[in-house]
Amino acid sequence: MITLASDFGTPYPAAMKGALLRRTDARLVDVSHDLPRGAIRESAFWLREVLPTFPPATHLAVVDPGVGTDRGVLVARAGEHTFVSPDNGLLAPAVRRIADGADADVDWFHADPGEPTSSTFHGRDVFAPLAATIHEFVADAGVGALGTHDRLTAIDGPVDCRLPEATVEDDRADGWVLAVDDFGNVVTNVPGDFLDGREVVRVNGQRVPVGATFGAVDPGSPLVVVGSHGYVECDVNGGRGDEWFGLSPGNTVEIDGVA
Amino acid sequence: MITLASDFGTPYPAAMKGALLRRTDARLVDVSHDLPRGAIRESAFWLREVLPTFPPATHLAVVDPGVGTDRGVLVARAGEHTFVSPDNGLLAPAVRRIADGADADVDWFHADPGEPTSSTFHGRDVFAPLAATIHEFVADAGVGALGTHDRLTAIDGPVDCRLPEATVEDDRADGWVLAVDDFGNVVTNVPGDFLDGREVVRVNGQRVPVGATFGAVDPGSPLVVVGSHGYVECDVNGGRGDEWFGLSPGNTVEIDGVA
Amino acid sequence: MITLASDFGTPYPAAMKGALLRRTDARLVDVSHDLPRGAIRESAFWLREVLPTFPPATHLAVVDPGVGTDRGVLVARAGEHTFVSPDNGLLAPAVRRIADGADADVDWFHADPGEPTSSTFHGRDVFAPLAATIHEFVADAGVGALGTHDRLTAIDGPVDCRLPEATVEDDRADGWVLAVDDFGNVVTNVPGDFLDGREVVRVNGQRVPVGATFGAVDPGSPLVVVGSHGYVECDVNGGRGDEWFGLSPGNTVEIDGVA
Repeated sequence: MITLASDFGTPYPAAMKGALLRRTDARLVDVSHDLPRGAIRESAFWLREVLPTFPPATHLAVVDPGVGTDRGVLVARAGEHTFVSPDNGLLAPAVRRIADGADADVDWFHADPGEPTSSTFHGRDVFAPLAATIHEFVADAGVGALGTHDRLTAIDGPVDCRLPEATVEDDRADGWVLAVDDFGNVVTNVPGDFLDGREVVRVNGQRVPVGATFGAVDPGSPLVVVGSHGYVECDVNGGRGDEWFGLSPGNTVEIDGVA
Repeated sequence: MITLASDFGTPYPAAMKGALLRRTDARLVDVSHDLPRGAIRESAFWLREVLPTFPPATHLAVVDPGVGTDRGVLVARAGEHTFVSPDNGLLAPAVRRIADGADADVDWFHADPGEPTSSTFHGRDVFAPLAATIHEFVADAGVGALGTHDRLTAIDGPVDCRLPEATVEDDRADGWVLAVDDFGNVVTNVPGDFLDGREVVRVNGQRVPVGATFGAVDPGSPLVVVGSHGYVECDVNGGRGDEWFGLSPGNTVEIDGVA
Repeated sequence: MITLASDFGTPYPAAMKGALLRRTDARLVDVSHDLPRGAIRESAFWLREVLPTFPPATHLAVVDPGVGTDRGVLVARAGEHTFVSPDNGLLAPAVRRIADGADADVDWFHADPGEPTSSTFHGRDVFAPLAATIHEFVADAGVGALGTHDRLTAIDGPVDCRLPEATVEDDRADGWVLAVDDFGNVVTNVPGDFLDGREVVRVNGQRVPVGATFGAVDPGSPLVVVGSHGYVECDVNGGRGDEWFGLSPGNTVEIDGVA
């Protein structure tokens, strides 16, 4: 199985699928081709949340604002999972999360990119063909043999993309907006247990109730919940939390538990 | 085969796919992940129109504004088709349509939801794992054995979602907008045969021609046709009928055949 | 393998998938269902660029503003590839490109459309069932036997859709915008080698640098590159070229190499 993720929209992902299917019969599963465009950190967050739900697979991900520059081509292994992407931080958090979940170690490689026929579409010309090659190699030789592949060179570690951690002290959390989802829910990096035992908090000064789920408040009303990622989310029942709270990815969030 | 439908946009559907593929090798087919957000009745309409085109399958559908509340978890069977969704009316019209088409009876169940790890993403934590389990069970034991599954309890019927019917008398139809499609075509619930033998009608007072298809009028001009769902549609050739007619889902439509 | 492309958005493509899967177990691969709506020439450009990346397949494509009129139903063969679409020019450039790439000849046919149950959704009622039938026929009898299929009649050639060619003379190119991609990159029809040896050009009078890739200029700055289709593209690094250059599909572009 090969999973595909990118910020390509349409129809460029189809050219990646074609390039894959010329080289492998593997099952293809679209993760998303609408990752936040050119936004490596937000995209890395989504991939860290979604890819660990999958069984062992080859994961191909391309958000690549540096296409055609000298950024490296990353191949990684965590347990039985294999990864292919630009070496720009995009997959590093997902690789580590999957390794942690499986109590497995990680191998990091740079791949020889070959001679791409374009300088602006390495998804089609470099990453998809490489992912197909790596997938077939692993299917034949086992994931443990990756280090012997003649296009791969072991490296110490990837270009990193550490997602920031919130500072939590007693009744106050200073955090950061990791992402806004398609519903408008604002995902912060404040751990969900900050809400334990609280009924109301202030988010950047605005007083909002703590709910178990959206339906805890009337439609159109704001609330904070422990979201599905385990973090505090700033939401509106049936509406857009990002608009109500005025928050976007990268904004800071101060949550005051004494409200 | 498992079909997937939701109002999740992106990338949450991928977490459902991952949760499914950890538990089954079934073929996955995306129906849509852009069903009208939180709109159970419109989504129920689309599923009723689309799912009957499929061969026997397990149909997983999640539009779930009541996620985390005490709404039930529905499993149903109609002929050789199996269904999994929140018990909020979403799939009831599709289940009945498929049963009618196959002259088959329907079994309705509630499922034990287990202990979801989140209160806001039951697509990943409840519905996808359940759909995989039910799919594998049916593959082994046959669809007729569903009633013996230890997580299912037979119920009399689901939470319902009756799509409203139009009132038609001689030269006048009082109807309702079921949906607006991506092209802007306005799908009413007025049966298409109301247009038989008519060349012009008034839609909420506006005089428009009856056409066999879009191309019956000049580009940019309005018309009514018998749409692909068998209902009267208010369209514009190469344009957006919803804008021209000023109609949205849930609006009333009065069609006067004496124009 | 059957590839699917349309301008249907959602959820109509699912009805095509259902109609296919009732008739064939073939693998389905979505190319795009967001082709430029009703825009045959732009859609034909994208299909010409994307479909040749695939291995031999049955390619189903529906952008059909003339649905329900007397336009024909096209079936074609180029090498081992088979094609099904409205005969309105949509697939003609892709068929020829694939034939050229394989040094293969092309067979063109019109198909008997049968009696569609709707006059507005031939994707579901005509093209998907036909594609499934043709795919199964080819799988059994071989692509060379297409001419013997009782629903097909050989024709001299399809309704054509010649993509316009640029006029290049020494230091000046007069071209045309073929497409704008989801990133906002403006794809012209000026051959990329026009940029050979140039560092700066004027695009419709505006002076912009020539770069090897987006990263050659600062974020937010314009440039021209040889894009992944081999043509001159007018882009902005990390931004939208269509907005900066004020260009849309069908616009003319004058590129002056003496800047």
